Amino acid sequence: MEFSELLKKRRTIRRFKQVQVFDKDIRYILEAARVVSCGGNVQKIHYIVARDKQLVKDIFDNTTWAGLVSPDRNPEWGKNAPLTFIILTAPEDSGSVMQANAGAAVQSMEYAAEDVGLGACWIGAFKKDNVEKLLGLPEQEETLYIMAIGYPDEEPVQEDIDSGESMKYYLDGDDVLHVPKFKTEAIADWR
Amino acid sequence: MEFSELLKKRRTIRRFKQVQVFDKDIRYILEAARVVSCGGNVQKIHYIVARDKQLVKDIFDNTTWAGLVSPDRNPEWGKNAPLTFIILTAPEDSGSVMQANAGAAVQSMEYAAEDVGLGACWIGAFKKDNVEKLLGLPEQEETLYIMAIGYPDEEPVQEDIDSGESMKYYLDGDDVLHVPKFKTEAIADWR
Repeated sequence: MEFSELLKKRRTIRRFKQVQVFDKDIRYILEAARVVSCGGNVQKIHYIVARDKQLVKDIFDNTTWAGLVSPDRNPEWGKNAPLTFIILTAPEDSGSVMQANAGAAVQSMEYAAEDVGLGACWIGAFKKDNVEKLLGLPEQEETLYIMAIGYPDEEPVQEDIDSGESMKYYLDGDDVLHVPKFKTEAIADWR
Repeated sequence: MEFSELLKKRRTIRRFKQVQVFDKDIRYILEAARVVSCGGNVQKIHYIVARDKQLVKDIFDNTTWAGLVSPDRNPEWGKNAPLTFIILTAPEDSGSVMQANAGAAVQSMEYAAEDVGLGACWIGAFKKDNVEKLLGLPEQEETLYIMAIGYPDEEPVQEDIDSGESMKYYLDGDDVLHVPKFKTEAIADWR
């Protein structure tokens, strides 16, 4: 899809169809992850692609979703994403630059997911120790983020807001998620 | 451009044509910045768009580029980017999540820039205090990153590498920058 079209839709999805993601699409998402910018080009970030149903469920049970519309968008099992990416690094690299690198990778992966009809949720709230134990990670590995990915079973709507307006996302009476985003005029100062 | 096409070319550029960037393209890059994922949707990141030649020069003088091929890709003034974005946040928000949010925004901006024929360099090495003074920032504002943007005057080449190979970028005899990136097999573990 044209990149300009990808920008027009909300990509963050928290309800998913129970349909498996194709391997070729997983590889495309990894392709989008590997080619991002990276401070010093060090590329210390790597990924676990979890598809095994029990592993996905065990990780899912350690995640928390969308605090402002809880519990409605903390999906019940059965509306979960069938695919989970775990984003990892070595602990000595988990400083601020590594966080920025991870953010860049996640954003690129989200676009790639959207490009093949998938939705994703970038999850920072999870029980790290439990997830690391579940994955049997060696000590030199650390989880940074989780991404849940699957075919969307909801259509969130973006609201464009002015400076000073509330950015709190909310569910309307039809259970549609509204996500306020500041207009460009509200985020930029031209000099 | 198709997103899949955007993934194929190196976007990080450090030599630029001395041609101004259109306002509509600046707004498109800001559009790509504002719609990214953001923890809790808090959107604390904002931007200064610097186009004034003296301001761009003063900021440029406080930046350091591409350590591994220094000084060849620390562009001399005259090969500089005519446009500089400064990525800012409030200090109380500059923790790890804010860094991740900034990384997501920068990556999205890079794709938007590439989509309209521009190149960009994401700069983390700059004299923060000097730049903040130059911009006359109030105390509650903090610079996170700088992005230099303009029409590319170089064509870096990506090299696909296996696990264990060197990720150090280098210049060849023809002054072309080569950027090694790990293949997907080297960064992912499927379970």
